[in-house]
Amino acid sequence: MSEQYNVQFINPILRAVLNVLSTMANVEVTPGKPYLNNNGLAVGDITGSVGIDGYAIGVISLSLSKGVVLTIVNNMLYENFTEINEEIADAVGELTNMISGQARSILSESDISFSAGTPKVIHGKGEKIDHIPSVPVLAVPFSSSHGDLVVEISLSNS
Amino acid sequence: MSEQYNVQFINPILRAVLNVLSTMANVEVTPGKPYLNNNGLAVGDITGSVGIDGYAIGVISLSLSKGVVLTIVNNMLYENFTEINEEIADAVGELTNMISGQARSILSESDISFSAGTPKVIHGKGEKIDHIPSVPVLAVPFSSSHGDLVVEISLSNS
Repeated sequence: MSEQYNVQFINPILRAVLNVLSTMANVEVTPGKPYLNNNGLAVGDITGSVGIDGYAIGVISLSLSKGVVLTIVNNMLYENFTEINEEIADAVGELTNMISGQARSILSESDISFSAGTPKVIHGKGEKIDHIPSVPVLAVPFSSSHGDLVVEISLSNS
Repeated sequence: MSEQYNVQFINPILRAVLNVLSTMANVEVTPGKPYLNNNGLAVGDITGSVGIDGYAIGVISLSLSKGVVLTIVNNMLYENFTEINEEIADAVGELTNMISGQARSILSESDISFSAGTPKVIHGKGEKIDHIPSVPVLAVPFSSSHGDLVVEISLSNS
């Protein structure tokens, strides 16, 4: 794994995901082994991404399978959606904002400060996520009984 | 009211507050008349603030009375807190992130783009909020049966 993405990025992402999902949606997920996603394509059915800047220019994305996004959003919003709709998409943008915000907050304790833009949401597995081109994308995966999700981060070398 | 703070800032703040509180906490609040808070002191018992940058350098803050913050956070986290504690403070940081994020998202539809830093939380009424010095602070107040809250924004002139 690239030296650029050391454990200092993995742990804040991990803590942010576990904390946001347990407190906001009462959903427990199990972290998997981080890997590099070199094709930059969405592994989940719906994906939120947000540009970050400061320590470096980068992108953080959150990609979720249909099963787990329905469970998370239904718990979070007291709903019973069975299909991915506009409200699910809005909530994925909000989850991306919350998870990236908490990860940034934890990183800022180590003087690694990022500001964040506004999340975008894309639909469909295999869609191109607008990660920083030509750099490895660090993927931190999670599994649950309802499906999988992954948080990815890419950072510009410059 | 300063020309700098026209209706284009009021409506996005209003929509963000109503949407976040109704969807995340099932709490309905009633907007009041926007005003300028010239002393920059917190009107609520607990206040989150976040730096923004892009269209201008600025600060967005969320200040809540004890009654309304307990109602919002207890609904949001399925808790029964009766005092402001560390979990309430963390949730105020999260609410500040969510409300400023949604307001930024709505503003970005009008090509007014901001990125945001990491929220800080301060305790106590009358504490100094780190708004941009020497500029008027636009305050958008809300009331509810559980107490009041206000979202404030200050933007640098330069």
